[in-house]
Amino acid sequence: MSFNTFGRVLRFTTWGESHGPAIGAVVDGCPPGLDLSEANIQPWLDKRRPGASKYTTQRRESDRVRILSGVFEGRTTGTPISLLIENEDHRSKDYSEVAKAYRPGHADYTYDAKYGFRDWRGGGRSSARETAARVAAAAIARIVIPDVTISAYVVELGGDPIDREAFDPGAMDANSLNCPDAAAARRWERMLDGARKEGSSLGAVIECVADGVPSGWGAPVYAKLDSELAAAMMSINAAKGVEIGDGFAAARLRGEENSDAMRAGPVFLSNHAGGILGGISTGQPVVVRVAFKPTSSILTPMETVDSDGNETEIVTKGRHDPCVGIRAVPVVEAMMALVLADQKLLHRAQCG
Amino acid sequence: MSFNTFGRVLRFTTWGESHGPAIGAVVDGCPPGLDLSEANIQPWLDKRRPGASKYTTQRRESDRVRILSGVFEGRTTGTPISLLIENEDHRSKDYSEVAKAYRPGHADYTYDAKYGFRDWRGGGRSSARETAARVAAAAIARIVIPDVTISAYVVELGGDPIDREAFDPGAMDANSLNCPDAAAARRWERMLDGARKEGSSLGAVIECVADGVPSGWGAPVYAKLDSELAAAMMSINAAKGVEIGDGFAAARLRGEENSDAMRAGPVFLSNHAGGILGGISTGQPVVVRVAFKPTSSILTPMETVDSDGNETEIVTKGRHDPCVGIRAVPVVEAMMALVLADQKLLHRAQCG
Amino acid sequence: MSFNTFGRVLRFTTWGESHGPAIGAVVDGCPPGLDLSEANIQPWLDKRRPGASKYTTQRRESDRVRILSGVFEGRTTGTPISLLIENEDHRSKDYSEVAKAYRPGHADYTYDAKYGFRDWRGGGRSSARETAARVAAAAIARIVIPDVTISAYVVELGGDPIDREAFDPGAMDANSLNCPDAAAARRWERMLDGARKEGSSLGAVIECVADGVPSGWGAPVYAKLDSELAAAMMSINAAKGVEIGDGFAAARLRGEENSDAMRAGPVFLSNHAGGILGGISTGQPVVVRVAFKPTSSILTPMETVDSDGNETEIVTKGRHDPCVGIRAVPVVEAMMALVLADQKLLHRAQCG
Amino acid sequence: MSFNTFGRVLRFTTWGESHGPAIGAVVDGCPPGLDLSEANIQPWLDKRRPGASKYTTQRRESDRVRILSGVFEGRTTGTPISLLIENEDHRSKDYSEVAKAYRPGHADYTYDAKYGFRDWRGGGRSSARETAARVAAAAIARIVIPDVTISAYVVELGGDPIDREAFDPGAMDANSLNCPDAAAARRWERMLDGARKEGSSLGAVIECVADGVPSGWGAPVYAKLDSELAAAMMSINAAKGVEIGDGFAAARLRGEENSDAMRAGPVFLSNHAGGILGGISTGQPVVVRVAFKPTSSILTPMETVDSDGNETEIVTKGRHDPCVGIRAVPVVEAMMALVLADQKLLHRAQCG
Repeated sequence: MSFNTFGRVLRFTTWGESHGPAIGAVVDGCPPGLDLSEANIQPWLDKRRPGASKYTTQRRESDRVRILSGVFEGRTTGTPISLLIENEDHRSKDYSEVAKAYRPGHADYTYDAKYGFRDWRGGGRSSARETAARVAAAAIARIVIPDVTISAYVVELGGDPIDREAFDPGAMDANSLNCPDAAAARRWERMLDGARKEGSSLGAVIECVADGVPSGWGAPVYAKLDSELAAAMMSINAAKGVEIGDGFAAARLRGEENSDAMRAGPVFLSNHAGGILGGISTGQPVVVRVAFKPTSSILTPMETVDSDGNETEIVTKGRHDPCVGIRAVPVVEAMMALVLADQKLLHRAQCG
Repeated sequence: MSFNTFGRVLRFTTWGESHGPAIGAVVDGCPPGLDLSEANIQPWLDKRRPGASKYTTQRRESDRVRILSGVFEGRTTGTPISLLIENEDHRSKDYSEVAKAYRPGHADYTYDAKYGFRDWRGGGRSSARETAARVAAAAIARIVIPDVTISAYVVELGGDPIDREAFDPGAMDANSLNCPDAAAARRWERMLDGARKEGSSLGAVIECVADGVPSGWGAPVYAKLDSELAAAMMSINAAKGVEIGDGFAAARLRGEENSDAMRAGPVFLSNHAGGILGGISTGQPVVVRVAFKPTSSILTPMETVDSDGNETEIVTKGRHDPCVGIRAVPVVEAMMALVLADQKLLHRAQCG
Repeated sequence: MSFNTFGRVLRFTTWGESHGPAIGAVVDGCPPGLDLSEANIQPWLDKRRPGASKYTTQRRESDRVRILSGVFEGRTTGTPISLLIENEDHRSKDYSEVAKAYRPGHADYTYDAKYGFRDWRGGGRSSARETAARVAAAAIARIVIPDVTISAYVVELGGDPIDREAFDPGAMDANSLNCPDAAAARRWERMLDGARKEGSSLGAVIECVADGVPSGWGAPVYAKLDSELAAAMMSINAAKGVEIGDGFAAARLRGEENSDAMRAGPVFLSNHAGGILGGISTGQPVVVRVAFKPTSSILTPMETVDSDGNETEIVTKGRHDPCVGIRAVPVVEAMMALVLADQKLLHRAQCG
Repeated sequence: MSFNTFGRVLRFTTWGESHGPAIGAVVDGCPPGLDLSEANIQPWLDKRRPGASKYTTQRRESDRVRILSGVFEGRTTGTPISLLIENEDHRSKDYSEVAKAYRPGHADYTYDAKYGFRDWRGGGRSSARETAARVAAAAIARIVIPDVTISAYVVELGGDPIDREAFDPGAMDANSLNCPDAAAARRWERMLDGARKEGSSLGAVIECVADGVPSGWGAPVYAKLDSELAAAMMSINAAKGVEIGDGFAAARLRGEENSDAMRAGPVFLSNHAGGILGGISTGQPVVVRVAFKPTSSILTPMETVDSDGNETEIVTKGRHDPCVGIRAVPVVEAMMALVLADQKLLHRAQCG
């Protein structure tokens, strides 16, 4: 079943395919009276925009967003906000081979299996282009949670992690890889150059931290804050793993190491929990990490079958990122913002 | 906001606290005409039941389930199925100290922060006792997907992984740890004995495999099968990480290693994807792994504060598992069943 | 598809059949810290209870409600509140003839058509007994909206309307028909006696007024307050029509008659709108009327078919009300309370 | 809370204001492989389009719909279908007076009360212009239920009902009032001319019949087919009442008159139930009637207050229908189609 809406009270619906005329989002449930214009949204889209460096897809999109509803005289009215981004550079011919053969690692086969056929132009709905609509929607979510600061960055690329001791937020501006460790950034650039030359690709792990989340957001059971974040992050293209706080590493700690002690304030003496206990925020930074598989579109020939069942080989031409994880950084931030804004309103609903 | 319902068309709602009179679940949207009696549910509860070995909590519950509605003459009617399990062994006095001080790693502080006060008896709603209701609900979900076989087991305990070469499903019956590697089971038993003696606890990683899922279940974007599974698994107590297929390890592979090649059939030559591409099942086994933190209730004294803000130390007495991950095995299976049954019906809704 | 949950943030799920062991409701999303015990719920159930007069079904149920979760030391905790009411007087033998033949005006045929078979004991899930669970759930909703006063009463019975000039709230206590016009009550008693003797039944129209609803609850489009109320009321057994304010009569007014003029305050000079404009409350009393068809279970023989398709006649024995509308009064109040409490929380979510 | 999405598995979200740049709808959950192009949608919009006769608003809109996503090579792909209609003729200056004073019978006051301010241009989101998006969405729903034929028409205008004996579907094409009784149409034209000259307006009752609905669609309790239809119809601008089958008249019948007898087939000997019993379709025509209040925008001066609380008078200039009910006919059909298509998929989900 197609479900293109996310959120419980602050909800957004995205639509659009990679090579259709446009993509967009409808944001519903936004509080009224918030200052909003295209100028609040465009910078986030620019940050995500492809073509910004040689390490990301060379597709050229200006990604100009238009607000079509829900804003009057510069303020949100409380009614649905429709956002539209036109697709400009959609060269469908690049994908002609894909129309028949299934690209390994892509959704080609599964879409055909589910729906009986598919829009093969650039991956259709399975394209990461959909994430531009999320980033636009999230710009509105950020306005709903002005006291929350969200920052995502790459902490591992191709299996090579950053040095936590060398963590420098400022370093991210100095490289095009969203890497907070200058030395790692230099290594990664070489790795990416190598991967591209070899027609290969690399995976990455993104970390996202939300500061300023008060204690009390979230819920006890099936809408645990960590559960909502896991759903949100795992809905991003190429995501294969999500962890909160210490995550999988917590499974290797002992109880007394993992539990965050408290002192008067209250303050926590550590944050192994990633800012969430029992599904509810503790007031510490909310920390999530997301694993992205290597780009499936590669120049290395892969064995596959076509839609008639014949065996063949495929080389994915077109314009692709050697590491989709890098471009996922603003999308991870977007999903964090969208989940937290929804949770803020939900908390207010129940607890006043 | 409290959200105690999970699922989209096959939905279940759980209720109940650790030390209230009972817990239960209401399963709604179940197809009519399926054979169902308590005998279909009880074995799964027995499998989950505490007190089965010295490595799990010594709380004694017979966990007898009663079906109160939705079944007539041994068959589901299509109306909601209410399941009730009485709490028998609830010694609230064990938790008297908890009433004031916040147990590190527990939801005590966050529940107070959200709701202003909390039911401190045994963790109240945050207790893993809630998972019995899920296991009962999942027994019904399993009947909805009779062609799917679900198996979960511990693949790592206290940082010590199983040997994949020694994987033997039969070994699980020979130990009380849900461990498919006989040698690892012996090591883990010693580790658990040690941890208990030291008043400590250990974490674990659970793997769950669903065989027999046809291609085509799932959805493209915000209800991706992996996203639904991530939400489901992360809603389990003590879960801190979820991964699909190779998960975080996929982020360390190259594109040509990670993408599963196809041959006529179609068959896939590998399953790095864990049976899901683009959010939709491929027809291969669906593979999920979940990381569980070490039990937060330990005998090692921890620094904390009480609800008046005073600094104190706490030792969690009561009856606790040295490794909650072990008992999470049937719960992980339950959530897998509940997600897949819902997806089966959703697929049928849209695609006939 | 079976959907037994109602509400958006304050949600309740009901379960149970007429002749099963019990019925119940789970109320989720309730604000924490509200005083609640069985004593808050029981009076509403007593008001609804069958067997109170000769004009309602002679089924004897004590309808004792038990709270199984979500309340600690007399206050709501914010977690789901499970309510259980045991069925005591379920003489299934009364319904043996119904097992085969379809009772005209009942859900017998449609349940079989949908599900392939049905629980024929007392109508199963289609029985008005389900409404006891709503009344119990609504007792909690009322606590969420302490400033709102809800009153429902019969304004027409068997086509005979009350005299609005003789409207006297006190009159309702003096008759067992929830009738605010003493003279009408006397006429109706004779009509009901006559209908019963003839093996017939009568319909009724119920009016419900909610005072104290502030302006601003509701929503512009698909969750208009009137739309939510219409869905809520039309979900009650035997309801066939719903109107807000002047309703169908408004269609016979001219624009200048129907539009409620305003004066400083602001105050409205009339309330043709029934307290709702554009889906949002005006601050005036919210007024809803619901039409109930005559009881379908009658002693007059009716032509029908059985489940094998054979033509037959049926006389519905068992214990039935000559006018189900009378007993719908507390149920209409309940649905009004449940909708308004949900809307209060939704308004708080979006608008703070 | 703003909720601009309707439906459970076949869902649509509308957005847009009367005087913004555009309005639109996103239809999600549509089955794949259905033939769809703008040519399937445009005729329904043309039927609804304003300016078609002197009895409807003189606003001139070409209402050209564009499909922006979800369709590939002329067929639905199963992904969300985005529909866009540009607003062309939006003369905001007509509404300048409305910016301050509250129009009686309109949502002006309640929007201000809820949101603190409002988009006053043409009613903003409360404008009936939103219904164009529903009509467009419904064109897709109709394709999902090809065996269902839906017909709506005016059965009463200004308190003057049609003569059921003179019912002639063909008559509807011969008048611009969607009236199936030629003589009534002539009377109504005179009434409308009179009302317009007097600066007044009239109400109407619309009846909608869906033929070809099989038995078994719907649900037992809170998603009863009649409940869903009531919510759908009451969400239409100016709707104040909804009834199913005999509706309010059923409350005046006796049990033996109202219950539809059955004979072998099975066939029903009457259809007082309006095709729904126990919330589930019987296989007979589904019959709904909706009451629309008279247009609130009238030239007769009305007492009101402005947003500063000062008393004033208002005459609503602008371009308005003397009877909004006439133009509601295609909208009522649209909501019927949208509800039924959703129910078809829901039934398939649960019952296969």
